[in-house]
Amino acid sequence: MYALYYSPGTASLVVHWLLIELDLPHELRSVDMAGRAHKGADYLALNPNGVVPTLLVDGQPRYEAAALTVYLADRHGDGAFAPAPDDAQRAEYLQWMFNLVATLQAPLRLWWYPSDLQADDEAVRRGAQARIEAACERLDAHLGASVAQGRGPYLLGERLSAADFYLTMLMRWTRKLPRPAHEWPHLGELARRMKARPSFAELYRREGLEEWA
Amino acid sequence: MYALYYSPGTASLVVHWLLIELDLPHELRSVDMAGRAHKGADYLALNPNGVVPTLLVDGQPRYEAAALTVYLADRHGDGAFAPAPDDAQRAEYLQWMFNLVATLQAPLRLWWYPSDLQADDEAVRRGAQARIEAACERLDAHLGASVAQGRGPYLLGERLSAADFYLTMLMRWTRKLPRPAHEWPHLGELARRMKARPSFAELYRREGLEEWA
Repeated sequence: MYALYYSPGTASLVVHWLLIELDLPHELRSVDMAGRAHKGADYLALNPNGVVPTLLVDGQPRYEAAALTVYLADRHGDGAFAPAPDDAQRAEYLQWMFNLVATLQAPLRLWWYPSDLQADDEAVRRGAQARIEAACERLDAHLGASVAQGRGPYLLGERLSAADFYLTMLMRWTRKLPRPAHEWPHLGELARRMKARPSFAELYRREGLEEWA
Repeated sequence: MYALYYSPGTASLVVHWLLIELDLPHELRSVDMAGRAHKGADYLALNPNGVVPTLLVDGQPRYEAAALTVYLADRHGDGAFAPAPDDAQRAEYLQWMFNLVATLQAPLRLWWYPSDLQADDEAVRRGAQARIEAACERLDAHLGASVAQGRGPYLLGERLSAADFYLTMLMRWTRKLPRPAHEWPHLGELARRMKARPSFAELYRREGLEEWA
């Protein structure tokens, strides 16, 4: 039994999505971010970074959405969403997970929270936007080459993996940016496929989301 | 047989270190970063992000230093540096790997390359410095609590893992910052332990490094 501390549409979304997709028993614990509960002593004792998600794993609080994504996909689903450690695609899978965090999620955070940097917010946003669009360009080129070579539409080619769920969450976060990720053709096609999964509709229903459906 | 595209002291350092520590056959291929070889067509064909490291894994170019760290520690060493996927400490291990990338490496990159953001460089550096120091504070508190509870000096307590190698590389990058990470007491103790490993001396010898020895 897992327990997920979450807030709708945030980085907890991908963990919630995988809990549904993998059909894992879990309890949801809403974190009142508008009321700053994630910066309160009770929550900071679980997650000193003061962000969601936190997942209780065997009773212990664990965090970092990407880490939980890799963890759940390795532990459950009989390898449906993650190449095993001895699989030839394992290094590629881990590469994408860390690449998404470093090259897309990091500038996205700056775009949404430019004041983290104490510099001019609009200048930070312009710089972040350039990095986000460069990441989208590289990801779209990768997917396009994969399709052109007959290897399939996912980050790992024909093989769907947890990295595609993670990328979809990040694409969702770009929906209000000057150039949303889904406007790149192959990224758009990936988003369409991922949003067509029944688990995505269930996720939206549970989190009360409507945008980008 | 692995082949590592590297440049001394950069993000390739942790991969090189693990190749030595795990005693894995490998070939080193120097990337002339001063000559901008990492932005040339030949290298970009291996790694479209234009950064080191790239590691040839079964003949395929793979990148992202943290991903390669997790990959090598899972594949080799009989679990000496990574809890197995079914180990109770697996989620904690992955948490630290992604947390180091998101909360320490990301602002460190901004500190070293503030012009990535097209904002005022000194303002970006001040903001990045605040985030780096907050990350050091959290990491030091974690290590301190672990020691106080008799669980040991590493990120996973008494158990050394690849995450400690990764953290040591990031601490090295702070050596010229206003407040280097090793000035926090528990981080300093971890750095001291990691630098005492024979593999660290061999790494320094091979990369021609002297600083922070």
